[in-house]
Amino acid sequence: MAKKKSAAAATEACTERVEVAGHIIDSLILPKILDIITASGGAFKIERITIGQARKDPSYALLEVTAPSEERLQQILAIIADHGAVAVSQADCRLVAADMDGAFPEGFYSSTNQRTEVRLNGEWVEVQLQEMDMGVVVDPAAQTATCRAMTEVKQGDLYVVGHAGTRVHPPERQEQKHGFEFMNSAVSTEKPKGVAIRQVATEMVQTKQRGGKTLLVGGPAIVHTGSDEHVCELIRRGYINSLFAGNALATHDIEQSLFGTSLGVRLDCGDIVEAGHEHHLRAINRVRRWGGIRPAVEKGELKSGIMYECVKHDVPYLLAGSIRDDGPLTDVITDSLDAQRQMREGIRDITFCLMVATTLHSIAVGNLLPAWVKVVCVDINPSTVIKLNDRGSFQTVGLVTDVEPFFRSLLAEIDRLEKATS
Amino acid sequence: MAKKKSAAAATEACTERVEVAGHIIDSLILPKILDIITASGGAFKIERITIGQARKDPSYALLEVTAPSEERLQQILAIIADHGAVAVSQADCRLVAADMDGAFPEGFYSSTNQRTEVRLNGEWVEVQLQEMDMGVVVDPAAQTATCRAMTEVKQGDLYVVGHAGTRVHPPERQEQKHGFEFMNSAVSTEKPKGVAIRQVATEMVQTKQRGGKTLLVGGPAIVHTGSDEHVCELIRRGYINSLFAGNALATHDIEQSLFGTSLGVRLDCGDIVEAGHEHHLRAINRVRRWGGIRPAVEKGELKSGIMYECVKHDVPYLLAGSIRDDGPLTDVITDSLDAQRQMREGIRDITFCLMVATTLHSIAVGNLLPAWVKVVCVDINPSTVIKLNDRGSFQTVGLVTDVEPFFRSLLAEIDRLEKATS
Amino acid sequence: MAKKKSAAAATEACTERVEVAGHIIDSLILPKILDIITASGGAFKIERITIGQARKDPSYALLEVTAPSEERLQQILAIIADHGAVAVSQADCRLVAADMDGAFPEGFYSSTNQRTEVRLNGEWVEVQLQEMDMGVVVDPAAQTATCRAMTEVKQGDLYVVGHAGTRVHPPERQEQKHGFEFMNSAVSTEKPKGVAIRQVATEMVQTKQRGGKTLLVGGPAIVHTGSDEHVCELIRRGYINSLFAGNALATHDIEQSLFGTSLGVRLDCGDIVEAGHEHHLRAINRVRRWGGIRPAVEKGELKSGIMYECVKHDVPYLLAGSIRDDGPLTDVITDSLDAQRQMREGIRDITFCLMVATTLHSIAVGNLLPAWVKVVCVDINPSTVIKLNDRGSFQTVGLVTDVEPFFRSLLAEIDRLEKATS
Amino acid sequence: MAKKKSAAAATEACTERVEVAGHIIDSLILPKILDIITASGGAFKIERITIGQARKDPSYALLEVTAPSEERLQQILAIIADHGAVAVSQADCRLVAADMDGAFPEGFYSSTNQRTEVRLNGEWVEVQLQEMDMGVVVDPAAQTATCRAMTEVKQGDLYVVGHAGTRVHPPERQEQKHGFEFMNSAVSTEKPKGVAIRQVATEMVQTKQRGGKTLLVGGPAIVHTGSDEHVCELIRRGYINSLFAGNALATHDIEQSLFGTSLGVRLDCGDIVEAGHEHHLRAINRVRRWGGIRPAVEKGELKSGIMYECVKHDVPYLLAGSIRDDGPLTDVITDSLDAQRQMREGIRDITFCLMVATTLHSIAVGNLLPAWVKVVCVDINPSTVIKLNDRGSFQTVGLVTDVEPFFRSLLAEIDRLEKATS
Repeated sequence: MAKKKSAAAATEACTERVEVAGHIIDSLILPKILDIITASGGAFKIERITIGQARKDPSYALLEVTAPSEERLQQILAIIADHGAVAVSQADCRLVAADMDGAFPEGFYSSTNQRTEVRLNGEWVEVQLQEMDMGVVVDPAAQTATCRAMTEVKQGDLYVVGHAGTRVHPPERQEQKHGFEFMNSAVSTEKPKGVAIRQVATEMVQTKQRGGKTLLVGGPAIVHTGSDEHVCELIRRGYINSLFAGNALATHDIEQSLFGTSLGVRLDCGDIVEAGHEHHLRAINRVRRWGGIRPAVEKGELKSGIMYECVKHDVPYLLAGSIRDDGPLTDVITDSLDAQRQMREGIRDITFCLMVATTLHSIAVGNLLPAWVKVVCVDINPSTVIKLNDRGSFQTVGLVTDVEPFFRSLLAEIDRLEKATS
Repeated sequence: MAKKKSAAAATEACTERVEVAGHIIDSLILPKILDIITASGGAFKIERITIGQARKDPSYALLEVTAPSEERLQQILAIIADHGAVAVSQADCRLVAADMDGAFPEGFYSSTNQRTEVRLNGEWVEVQLQEMDMGVVVDPAAQTATCRAMTEVKQGDLYVVGHAGTRVHPPERQEQKHGFEFMNSAVSTEKPKGVAIRQVATEMVQTKQRGGKTLLVGGPAIVHTGSDEHVCELIRRGYINSLFAGNALATHDIEQSLFGTSLGVRLDCGDIVEAGHEHHLRAINRVRRWGGIRPAVEKGELKSGIMYECVKHDVPYLLAGSIRDDGPLTDVITDSLDAQRQMREGIRDITFCLMVATTLHSIAVGNLLPAWVKVVCVDINPSTVIKLNDRGSFQTVGLVTDVEPFFRSLLAEIDRLEKATS
Repeated sequence: MAKKKSAAAATEACTERVEVAGHIIDSLILPKILDIITASGGAFKIERITIGQARKDPSYALLEVTAPSEERLQQILAIIADHGAVAVSQADCRLVAADMDGAFPEGFYSSTNQRTEVRLNGEWVEVQLQEMDMGVVVDPAAQTATCRAMTEVKQGDLYVVGHAGTRVHPPERQEQKHGFEFMNSAVSTEKPKGVAIRQVATEMVQTKQRGGKTLLVGGPAIVHTGSDEHVCELIRRGYINSLFAGNALATHDIEQSLFGTSLGVRLDCGDIVEAGHEHHLRAINRVRRWGGIRPAVEKGELKSGIMYECVKHDVPYLLAGSIRDDGPLTDVITDSLDAQRQMREGIRDITFCLMVATTLHSIAVGNLLPAWVKVVCVDINPSTVIKLNDRGSFQTVGLVTDVEPFFRSLLAEIDRLEKATS
Repeated sequence: MAKKKSAAAATEACTERVEVAGHIIDSLILPKILDIITASGGAFKIERITIGQARKDPSYALLEVTAPSEERLQQILAIIADHGAVAVSQADCRLVAADMDGAFPEGFYSSTNQRTEVRLNGEWVEVQLQEMDMGVVVDPAAQTATCRAMTEVKQGDLYVVGHAGTRVHPPERQEQKHGFEFMNSAVSTEKPKGVAIRQVATEMVQTKQRGGKTLLVGGPAIVHTGSDEHVCELIRRGYINSLFAGNALATHDIEQSLFGTSLGVRLDCGDIVEAGHEHHLRAINRVRRWGGIRPAVEKGELKSGIMYECVKHDVPYLLAGSIRDDGPLTDVITDSLDAQRQMREGIRDITFCLMVATTLHSIAVGNLLPAWVKVVCVDINPSTVIKLNDRGSFQTVGLVTDVEPFFRSLLAEIDRLEKATS
């Protein structure tokens, strides 16, 4: 990133001109940038500002940023670059070869989950497989740039270092009246729930109509609360196109199919069955004896439930293991890096993601998804939603509600929408 | 309560014989009593024990209780009396006249919410208006005993003092398979919810069929979550026969009727209306101008909502004030003692109580209800249910779920039951 | 509020010129106003804009607001007036006489908790006793304006109606590095707690040094968790200058002084005392027999605890009643309107407010406080803090932590600060 | 398990005599057994009963259990065997050879976490490596029995099948006044916290004095809340002898050592550092470059923090991976089965376990621990403790409090105890 020494060399102040364009006032981007500069000990002069007259017109600002030292200046530029402020005298991104397998070079550029471009040979190239907390590997011959995980680094690969020659496209604020309007106060429990559920239903119906794909990330409370049949129905009708879960969801789903219980509680009447706590272990053991879930279905042993419907309707499922698993089922991927790799593959064509009653899997998938995939996170415990937002999955809409009545109402709303459009 | 000095006078140990009868082993009463005796520094000898052979046969035990001092002995007897252990040489209850208005005599007997009898002139008399944390006032002429609040004490009234001549009938454990089977782990969020809601529906349908009365104790989240119309439907169909609430529920119900919003949030689409936070205040102000809720309905100004339906269907409502109220509405009882008095009147013929989304009113009503009135407490926040149980309302079944989907599912289950029985 | 018909009368569009000044860009005020205009169906032209070069320089903008109808225009003006946008051709505020006792005239101006001025005879006059959700009564002779509650309205009083001639001063964003820096993500539980507690300690020490007054609003969990002695120490050392609470805090405080228990739990060892659940009732009864808390202290009956220290150190206390109270104590104000009146008096000279473990009293006091009184709300349950913010007490800093360790650490930090400054 | 046909063969009722001994009344074991029999459709006759006169004397009961069918009888016997009821005419346990690797034979005996014995050649042999949800593999030659996980099964190994020849020793109720008295209402937030923390301190001091070992199972909130230094102090002073955690705790601990932040929040002042969200990723990358945590310490790169102290004081640490991990650190065990195996090794000599602010790791470790290892689970969110109890870790004492003030108070109490005993 080029810089320009201040004319007044005596003061040793360092200066750089940056520009920022777009809905920078309406979207609160410019104030944020000005704020960062002064809060970080720098100063700015607005050299030029053009504010769009109509709401739709973009604005533009040219700023002179001054800092007491070169180091401080670079820090400021690095930060405001994430908000779209580009140094006028742009350089290409800097590349450094990895000196070992499995770790980035020091100073590596750490990605966000938003659309990003890097400048290669004077041209801005869009980064592929956008994902947060990755490095960006560059193939200069092919003129491509791609996000890559730390564990996948091979010695000699070229990685972007520093913020020079990088720019991200922060999402401009959505127009009100469109999309998820309940997005703002995501975690409040005291909102009209029928409206929120109707919006989720609309999203899922539109996703299906547009040929998009909906991913369900689910926890075992789906089965415990008696929502199994609702999810089966969504799978059969093509509203869930992929399932990510853990050993627990699949195990209790199979337990209820084989024994009629979930964690030993009868799902038809709520009674606790004596010795029923062993059911889930016996279910796992049987699946292991049958050779896995798909063989169990093919042998006619497993005849109902979420996993059965996945097999029957060719809905891919991915079961990621954890250290609290009993068993686990034959199908569970016990290595977390393997699981992450397969999840990355699995989310490539997802356009809508519904996360229900699982903190672990929701955060794991939230880490992988680019910012433009809409996510709705449903949990009766507000802390799950708070945690997800704290960890940077800002596109997530939280819905604090109860799982079974949620799915029941969701299906009713989908029915209503299908009738309305047919 | 008679006592018997131990033969070994030298040791100064004091002794009393008590008996206990009923399902004392099956219901865990005997072990509890033995436990209390030894934990309180006493000792026991089981002089006689008859254990029922069949599950239905009652058992009987005669114990000799020994304590190191007379004072300790009386303490122990006082405690185990609450578990049904009766001193064999029974005395009448002791009566002391109140020496001032508004306070009990020292040592007053403090009531529980379970069926209680006191011995007057050798006869056991059932206490009227059973309620926890009351004194028991006795009219010797009429041979009656009645629970009475501290604030209602008049100088000269006779109050029971000590545990002598009192006995309570602890509820024997309910048979499994009957009543609310989900009662046991009340606060878990991970239970089959459809089953629990079906049981509430069954209870409400049976209450109506038997000519019982259902009381709804509700908070404003009923309106905020968009459940207003569900509750209106329950009132119209005769499933809610009385309503206890605060200023907030009535205010936001009327706000949604007049403005279509609740706390400024549009209930049809979830949008936040600018300046909508003033709506509830304007609603209160209008009701005050109209002279109250009933006049507002009669003048044709208030045309829908929970309060409207209460007026139209002669469902009595009681609005109790609190220090966080705006306004309040003309109908709100602002004095807490007045409110408690009117609530006491209002719960006399209630046979089933549904508490939804209000900690304050749920605890207040829970304090007033005798133990034999079934209570279901619905809240998305487990802490409300935990608090209710911590304060002694043990008959309460907690259901941790979301308000709007709860009412929606409840109505669907009631529909199903009505069809099944018609 | 004056308006100016657009030149193009054919289009029927209505226009008004408004100005806004201050840190309108840095504080995000201008973008918000532009946003409201377009989101409400209006349009704007920026006629003039001056952006301060340095961070400290104020900016100024003159906007022409256009709306499709006069009605719409007035709506927009009303909303943006709350953000400091003032119509250039200002009118005086409109006054309407109350036509009845106990209710405002229709269309009354509803106050916020921020500094507000109304224009009387061409002059801007500051509103007295600023409080949210009030009307503004004007005395034209004295040229004064004052917030007044709905229930206090007297027929014939003059109230401000509409937004014309009113302006509020929204708080400009605080500089980072000053005041409560943990303010931003108030409800997260995963923040460095030592820092937050140190800041509360600093605030309390400074309040004392400056001659300000700290109000404690507290719930009974203060006693249940064993924090009684910590609070006593704060009172003795002059760090708590006023106490607002309910019957429960005072009752359990007195219970622990008389019996060593809180709700029947021994505070020295955590044991549950059999029959200890009666202790609080016996404590209330005794206080009623003694004639109140002050007489109990003066008679030498009550010798320790929070209430004792309040009496001994002339710290005024206010106990507001609620419908869930047992007893209550002689000192409790049972009428909620009386309680609100006395609370209003009590908060007049408060400069810092610490709310601990009570939702009801925290919201009640939050409703009364003007926006410039700093509030810290401590609760282990995040939902209390969320509720407080949802109801408009935006100056509140939430601290999700446990009561007893909070007070213990707070005292340690105050000790440290006292030593550092002595 | 031998059985005895009822004399009245016509009725086809099946009968078995069982005996049960110990504190069966005091510990509520007998009532539970009787309850199970009748609730399961069986009947009982108490043939003999001896109730201990003193609290310490054991009782004994001989029951004749009757059921309508042989199948039902076996079901009943299987259930009551878990409560210590032993068929008088005992058989050896039944053994079946595993027919494949990685799965138990059908009908396998599923272990609890309580002391268990199996009968081999007429002798009762204690099961080794007791752990819940395992099979029991028997070596008839060595006359030994051992818990083994499903995934570790080798074809041909002999596994116990059914309940015959097995007996468990349920924990008798602890005397009040000893051990953790706050155990009863584990999840309430309204208890005297100082007492509870003092008891944890006492447990840790006694564990150290007796030469026991304390295991800390911790989540990253330990670092986020600023408790790092407290934990370091506990390690240095020998109060933490083993650490189980995940990638997050170690990462943020190292982040705070290298950058002074945790998740980008400065721990000294609570400020959010711009671009600080990248710190944890840069920390992981550096550790990977250094070759792991131990090399980082040995090279002098890592100079403080929990992980540093573990290395310096030879406290073994185990970092188990999960699918939400960034990086992860070189030391993290990414395969969940490997991690479980190493955790099993690691808990063998643990006598006290402190779980802080991690649901995943707490449940995982709770699954592995035998019932006689005391566990205290500290979390600000009550749901973690509820979940742990729901999953069968009944020896767990839950403490709902805030992490940083907890550790601060814990250290103060340990100091106090050390002084008292020195």
